[in-house]
Amino acid sequence: MKGFTFFVVAVAAIVGLVALSVPAPGHADAAPAPYVTEMPNGYRDWQWVSSAHEAGNLNSLGAVLGNDIAIKAYREGKWPFPDGSIIAALHYRNIPSDENNKVFGKEQSFVPGAPTNIQFMVKDSVKYAATGGWGFGHFQGGKSADAAFMKPCFPCHEKAKATDLVFTRYAP
Amino acid sequence: MKGFTFFVVAVAAIVGLVALSVPAPGHADAAPAPYVTEMPNGYRDWQWVSSAHEAGNLNSLGAVLGNDIAIKAYREGKWPFPDGSIIAALHYRNIPSDENNKVFGKEQSFVPGAPTNIQFMVKDSVKYAATGGWGFGHFQGGKSADAAFMKPCFPCHEKAKATDLVFTRYAP
Repeated sequence: MKGFTFFVVAVAAIVGLVALSVPAPGHADAAPAPYVTEMPNGYRDWQWVSSAHEAGNLNSLGAVLGNDIAIKAYREGKWPFPDGSIIAALHYRNIPSDENNKVFGKEQSFVPGAPTNIQFMVKDSVKYAATGGWGFGHFQGGKSADAAFMKPCFPCHEKAKATDLVFTRYAP
Repeated sequence: MKGFTFFVVAVAAIVGLVALSVPAPGHADAAPAPYVTEMPNGYRDWQWVSSAHEAGNLNSLGAVLGNDIAIKAYREGKWPFPDGSIIAALHYRNIPSDENNKVFGKEQSFVPGAPTNIQFMVKDSVKYAATGGWGFGHFQGGKSADAAFMKPCFPCHEKAKATDLVFTRYAP
């Protein structure tokens, strides 16, 4: 019995390892992962595209930054964005600035509070062909969201087809 | 008479030219101008410090960018900012994004509209010694505001003495 138990545990362990390493269901054809699951390097140094405030439940204040390729395309007003473009959306809680408001004498100043998430769009027309050439990523505390969470990204961004699936405009 | 008229016009023209080139009243001691009256070059390429939303009458949405010296000081959390630091505040009307709201199905998305003004703080502890080492600038459509308009900059920013007169914090 001892040998059999070991065998079962070993098989279970191997199945577990294999389960961890194979793509999620639906991508068992070994196609590239359709999501961005690693944070692009150096995004905090990228140039500013625009700011955004989402009211309501999101209550978010943040900025969109772009790598050199994306910024160049933005400035030239050229769509579609070329491969290699990466756009980062840095989101924070939208909170009142007590120290600013004290100076202003009224509740008018809102600033980024705690970071909430960072989202990326990575252009690779081959790798992400199934989602309009863009890979979508969502990170909280540096950790990637799972595929189920990111599934709605593409159908929503697809509504911005006229601007190559990108909602954010370049602020002059 | 003709000669005298020419003389008067010539003198008036010279006085006009001199009036344009001498410092504003109150700085006739040839001290350096206490305000920033020329837009620093390349500010739109600088790195992002943070975003800001001012509600109420200002109804502004914008971003603060910093040149390399300012960004380094921000990231090291080192005050006072060293000479050469320049901080730019780019302001726009805070407007709803109709196209985003159509996708969200509700009025929640606000984005930068028309540019309103750009403000600068330039650190030069000698040139701007009288205003805490910072020169203040305010530009609309690329044109500098006059000295009277910028006079309140310093007394207001002085209230942020604990952070070297700078209100905006670095967003991580």
